[in-house]
Amino acid sequence: MAVAADDGLVEELAGLVGRPHVLAPGEDHAPYVVDWRGRYHGKALAVVKPASTAEVAAVVALCARRGIAIVPQGGNTGMCGAATPDAEGRSVVLRLDRLNRVRAVNPLANSITVEAGCILQAIQEAAAGVDRLFPLSLGAEGSCQIGGNIATNAGGTAVLRYGNTRELVLGLEVVLPDGSRLDRLQGLRKNSSGYDLKQLFIGAEGTLGVVTAATLKLFPRPRVSALAMVALPEIEAALTLLGRLRDAVGDRLTSLEAMSRGQVEVIAEHVPDVPIPFALEAPWYLLIELTDTLASTNLRTPLEEVLAAALEEGLVTDAVLAESGAQAGALWKIRHSVSEGSKRAGYVVSHDSVVPIENAPLFARNVERRILEEVPGARVVMHGHVGDGNLHVLAILDARQFPDAVTAAPVARRINAVVDDETAALGGVISAEHGIGISNRDRLGRVTDPVELLLMRRVKDLLDPTGIMNPGKVHPPGA
Amino acid sequence: MAVAADDGLVEELAGLVGRPHVLAPGEDHAPYVVDWRGRYHGKALAVVKPASTAEVAAVVALCARRGIAIVPQGGNTGMCGAATPDAEGRSVVLRLDRLNRVRAVNPLANSITVEAGCILQAIQEAAAGVDRLFPLSLGAEGSCQIGGNIATNAGGTAVLRYGNTRELVLGLEVVLPDGSRLDRLQGLRKNSSGYDLKQLFIGAEGTLGVVTAATLKLFPRPRVSALAMVALPEIEAALTLLGRLRDAVGDRLTSLEAMSRGQVEVIAEHVPDVPIPFALEAPWYLLIELTDTLASTNLRTPLEEVLAAALEEGLVTDAVLAESGAQAGALWKIRHSVSEGSKRAGYVVSHDSVVPIENAPLFARNVERRILEEVPGARVVMHGHVGDGNLHVLAILDARQFPDAVTAAPVARRINAVVDDETAALGGVISAEHGIGISNRDRLGRVTDPVELLLMRRVKDLLDPTGIMNPGKVHPPGA
Repeated sequence: MAVAADDGLVEELAGLVGRPHVLAPGEDHAPYVVDWRGRYHGKALAVVKPASTAEVAAVVALCARRGIAIVPQGGNTGMCGAATPDAEGRSVVLRLDRLNRVRAVNPLANSITVEAGCILQAIQEAAAGVDRLFPLSLGAEGSCQIGGNIATNAGGTAVLRYGNTRELVLGLEVVLPDGSRLDRLQGLRKNSSGYDLKQLFIGAEGTLGVVTAATLKLFPRPRVSALAMVALPEIEAALTLLGRLRDAVGDRLTSLEAMSRGQVEVIAEHVPDVPIPFALEAPWYLLIELTDTLASTNLRTPLEEVLAAALEEGLVTDAVLAESGAQAGALWKIRHSVSEGSKRAGYVVSHDSVVPIENAPLFARNVERRILEEVPGARVVMHGHVGDGNLHVLAILDARQFPDAVTAAPVARRINAVVDDETAALGGVISAEHGIGISNRDRLGRVTDPVELLLMRRVKDLLDPTGIMNPGKVHPPGA
Repeated sequence: MAVAADDGLVEELAGLVGRPHVLAPGEDHAPYVVDWRGRYHGKALAVVKPASTAEVAAVVALCARRGIAIVPQGGNTGMCGAATPDAEGRSVVLRLDRLNRVRAVNPLANSITVEAGCILQAIQEAAAGVDRLFPLSLGAEGSCQIGGNIATNAGGTAVLRYGNTRELVLGLEVVLPDGSRLDRLQGLRKNSSGYDLKQLFIGAEGTLGVVTAATLKLFPRPRVSALAMVALPEIEAALTLLGRLRDAVGDRLTSLEAMSRGQVEVIAEHVPDVPIPFALEAPWYLLIELTDTLASTNLRTPLEEVLAAALEEGLVTDAVLAESGAQAGALWKIRHSVSEGSKRAGYVVSHDSVVPIENAPLFARNVERRILEEVPGARVVMHGHVGDGNLHVLAILDARQFPDAVTAAPVARRINAVVDDETAALGGVISAEHGIGISNRDRLGRVTDPVELLLMRRVKDLLDPTGIMNPGKVHPPGA
């Protein structure tokens, strides 16, 4: 990648977005050059905060002219370092915060058009304001930005019913690496007019262009729900329950979230204000949520019937049904505390594997056994969206022995290799919902079909021939 | 595009797939070189029918070596000539008929893996066999092949609830223009592991590669439905009803199909065995279907309540509720007779426009007025999926005056220009569900953003640098 000197860069950027919206070297870059997990520490020539698509286009065109790399950044809540500049300090960090307008809400078309810097929660609230649901829901929703959700094709806890972010995107506005603009914001539900180019930019982590706005799907708002947490004698029971719940209520089954006993223990130990309504004697726990848009629908009876039969047969060994919204919230709080609890428990080597759902139990057993063979001292816990075959495997290491990423790197590589090999052997992929970024870029090459990998690389070279868009993400540097 | 001589081509193809599966020049090519509307008459060097993905790859590799164009063809039921070879007779027609295995059905994962030559109806039946729904439904379902549905991103009558074909595809197997194979058949619901390359081939009409197999989404099977046909005083009422039905039953609203009075009259005149339960006094008729997967759900009451209020207010001037499956079938028969009736009524200049739904009424009024100004003798009728903003505009010309495509071409061009300009002016695109093929390729250039058009062209050149994959489709020849 050609890199020009940065003479006068700050002044040129200031000329485009206004001096108050450029952070020069020496000004406070700290919040923007380290990922939230603290794994990657980069440097930047400048941090720039444009306020409009036109300003983003102007900044990208300037960087393209000068051959300066651009690292698009939203809420900086990513799990794989996809928004962190490298340590060379030759990149500009492009913050989308100021593109935060809801451009349009259309209840008739069930769509909303938002700018990339909108906070996910603000979009959920705008949808609720017109009695609609925007279903994307994840731990960071109070601070992550939709541009980042789109760039990583984020998942979350409602994918079982509504799909990953990709399935929620009706249209995109993208600034291409040369500063030109692709406008596919029409919220059309049907379109067979040539190639669907917007798909390239969803999940591309800013390596092909900068997403500046999107038109998203809205859904009828659920008016009733039923929620239970149950203890399972083995993870296979989760799949049996999935089948029975689907037979009973169809796609009213919205969430099916599994946690291993070890995962719940980590929360009990490190997030003490979260009450756990079980004696932790079962190997797996499962959160089940049903929702419906018709207030008159009775969801509790079919849920009780399925669980009563399961208890009878020993498929479920214990069950708690939420009697109120507050109780439902308390049970969800357990699930939403996994990241915080695990982070406090030690140095976490985490994974985002997804396998064909029927292979999920074998995957869980194999990775636990093999990680413990490889690293006897590790604490292996799991949580995830078992209804989609997406189980997050966490190997928690002693923080005194492994205080940081550098110290942990060699053992982390061995753990990753075990998990990745099992994932590939069982027909899965290494990232279901977090993305590739820096964390997974080298591993992607190890486990991906060479034809597919080569085509990804050729698409990158086609759209970004000089390699200025978020270099070192998805693809290894200089690949 | 380099074109080699065809010396020994038939023998080489026979060596790959067996002589009985190659139709040499002089053998009966007729069913394969004319589109079903009879608009395009092509010629072929040979028609070849491989039986497996490996044979498809071998045929494509052979053609690539010899610089011979390939025209993939499924059921040959397409609406825009995307599967018809040109008249130069320098192409090989690649039929997918013999790739017709259902490779796997997975009720737990709600997915089915099928080969490209599977008839759509056979897939619907395989899904029903495991008590699931494959929702793609369209007039040609008894003879169209899923490979063609994927290549054109087909729509149909259940898009409102389930989306176009693109949204139903979980994975693809594709033979690339060099004969190499891209395998993304894992039916993963979640995947953020790099670019989603399979999206490029959905809706690409075989111009980027040959789809040989797909993993598709299945859904819980609806167990109850309620259906009505109503007469509307104006098309705006359809959108008001859409909002009220969604408020009443959420996404249980599965279909919302509109027909102009002229369209129903065409059916009454030319498909006399189809009974019409109305005196045709209203300007628009609307077919409404609600479905649910829970047998205990009462859909009839909310439908009756919405329609009773609408009749009260004059939003609806007449209504028929189906009292039985047979009556529901009879009402659907009207909708499914539009193509047959229109074809018998004269020479049809048809369109597949989609506009943002709120613009659909203005679109319908403007195109009717402007076509009649442009071609006073035309009979302008409309039908379509008004819930998605997709209205098919048909200008029916006197068949004695316009016996064929050649004679009709000049007036068809003028009609197309009117419809395309209105479509673009109202924020729509010219193909919602049929594709581009030959019919729309030049028109696509007229109304598409140049940045988008250029990027489509660059993607084509990247994947198919020698231009052997279905030349002259989507992109104008030699573009």
